[in-house]
Amino acid sequence: MKAAVYHGLRDIRVEERELKALRSDELTIRVAWAGICGSDLHEYEAGPVFVPMDQPDAITGEVAPLTMGHEFAGIVEAVGSAVTKYQVGDRVVVNPTLTHRQNQPDLDVYDGFSFIGLHSDGGFTSYVNAPETNVYTLPANLTLQEGALVEPTAVGVQAVKESGMKFGDTVAIFGAGPIGLVTLLAAKAAGASKIFMFDFSAVRLAKAAELGASVYNLQDHDPIKVVHDELGRGVDATFEVAGVGPALNSAIDVTRARGTVVVVSIFAKGFDFNPMKLTNSGVKLTSTIAYSDASFQQTIDLIANGSLKPQDIVTKKIELDQIVDEGFVTLTEDKAQVKILVELSGEM
Amino acid sequence: MKAAVYHGLRDIRVEERELKALRSDELTIRVAWAGICGSDLHEYEAGPVFVPMDQPDAITGEVAPLTMGHEFAGIVEAVGSAVTKYQVGDRVVVNPTLTHRQNQPDLDVYDGFSFIGLHSDGGFTSYVNAPETNVYTLPANLTLQEGALVEPTAVGVQAVKESGMKFGDTVAIFGAGPIGLVTLLAAKAAGASKIFMFDFSAVRLAKAAELGASVYNLQDHDPIKVVHDELGRGVDATFEVAGVGPALNSAIDVTRARGTVVVVSIFAKGFDFNPMKLTNSGVKLTSTIAYSDASFQQTIDLIANGSLKPQDIVTKKIELDQIVDEGFVTLTEDKAQVKILVELSGEM
Repeated sequence: MKAAVYHGLRDIRVEERELKALRSDELTIRVAWAGICGSDLHEYEAGPVFVPMDQPDAITGEVAPLTMGHEFAGIVEAVGSAVTKYQVGDRVVVNPTLTHRQNQPDLDVYDGFSFIGLHSDGGFTSYVNAPETNVYTLPANLTLQEGALVEPTAVGVQAVKESGMKFGDTVAIFGAGPIGLVTLLAAKAAGASKIFMFDFSAVRLAKAAELGASVYNLQDHDPIKVVHDELGRGVDATFEVAGVGPALNSAIDVTRARGTVVVVSIFAKGFDFNPMKLTNSGVKLTSTIAYSDASFQQTIDLIANGSLKPQDIVTKKIELDQIVDEGFVTLTEDKAQVKILVELSGEM
Repeated sequence: MKAAVYHGLRDIRVEERELKALRSDELTIRVAWAGICGSDLHEYEAGPVFVPMDQPDAITGEVAPLTMGHEFAGIVEAVGSAVTKYQVGDRVVVNPTLTHRQNQPDLDVYDGFSFIGLHSDGGFTSYVNAPETNVYTLPANLTLQEGALVEPTAVGVQAVKESGMKFGDTVAIFGAGPIGLVTLLAAKAAGASKIFMFDFSAVRLAKAAELGASVYNLQDHDPIKVVHDELGRGVDATFEVAGVGPALNSAIDVTRARGTVVVVSIFAKGFDFNPMKLTNSGVKLTSTIAYSDASFQQTIDLIANGSLKPQDIVTKKIELDQIVDEGFVTLTEDKAQVKILVELSGEM
């Protein structure tokens, strides 16, 4: 079968690849749709970051070249002998997070984790194997495209849960990229009464405005002035989704005393930070990485009941053969692109 | 009356000073004991930091030279016409924190605050005026010396409350100075089952060991190894009471996933910080500044019921005439000194 395989920096090849042997606790899923994630792009542009190149990954035992793709949904094609919950033909979505499962669910991820589609073969192909524990039923009213959007949306859901944001609260988001936008969707679904979105990109902000945010370009606006002019105080919860020091400092600046800033982004490097920013403001600082199993299921349920509409962030649909030129390259060059979905053919 | 008056860097003079006119909402307190605080020392060694030198303070309207001393207790000598709760002869302790009182009690301090004894005349003298709202009754079983220890102890109580530490939890403290030690006292009073104390000073650690901490000199010990060898995981709550970047990084390192680090210290400058330390560890970061009114009262009650014994940190008692040589200079030079109390004479 054809697969988009990671060989290294700027080297993703659509080539023939064999499906691995099915283990007893695994299902084979015929992939219908798979989304391209920011971390996929990061592997392509600046990687390898997560993909194990020299040594087998500690959790999966696999090593590059590996099929990418960790945001995907499809139909059960085969079940291992120990699988109990699923049958051939079931519509499912995969939570790609693999942990040691030796700790409580909310702590497990901090013992280390790997991703199907980064540390083992993923969903940019026709068929993929996944452990039953990572498979979730797609409700009847969800499309398979929506299924492929569960994973990135769960990142936003986890971030909003972590913030302690309550119904009616005010929110600020720094960074209107794909994760900033799913955080916006989640904050709206959680009942934020006002969502300030800050970025330097007019096209990204236009998308955020479509989704219901009050948008401000940082080239023209001081975020502290914007928030205080509007509210007379800071917001209740702020999300740092840009991954740079100035965004985190501004995130603290626009948040009210005893409000929370959640670092959702991945920082490539440190910056000069004075903890007095927290001491003087009374702002609390926390972070998220991926999402819990509970948040993944809640995301499915929130899409199913209409609270979350992640299909609004899909800007392009392509086929596997187009994944490099029309997928990775387009996402690199065109900031108007948010989520590109890849349709898979099911051909063996 | 004689008073220890701040004139500037390394210039504190014991000299004659007049008691200000009593306002209707104020009490005059005959000071019995007053403690020298780390921030007093900071004003002496590296100030002015807080003391208003050129312009009147926004809250108090006062300007240097000012009588120092914000940790004090004494006896009510006179009451203003609008005072309702106190009578001449009452034993009282003063909460020196002056805020705008325009916000909720837990948020008020973040609108700005001043201190009696830093931004207005304080307790290193015979008599001082304080607003009734800042005066607390000293329970009958507390000595006036213990009264003078309420203020610094409240800083530790606030820090432990902020950490979310629960009965039986494990704790680490970086920095065994006076505030590190009151944080230790508060953590013990809150029922911490194990308290790791890290510092570079053997004499400070010896004091912490006396007070019940497991002490480790950072010259000889890697705190991560110490904590993980002992617990098999990180501690539940950690207090950064050193005010330097390496201490904050280590504080995060020794804390369990979803545990909390509280910045209690005042950082003089920033440092290179990578938020991935939070993202990878799952540690939450928060801070305290001073204490709430509620924590001040709770501190009094915890001393009164025997849970907190701040008298254990008193290392020296002196008279007002000795305050520079035997107080400020001694604290600067002798790390074995923790809390020096000044006895006041009551002479007008």
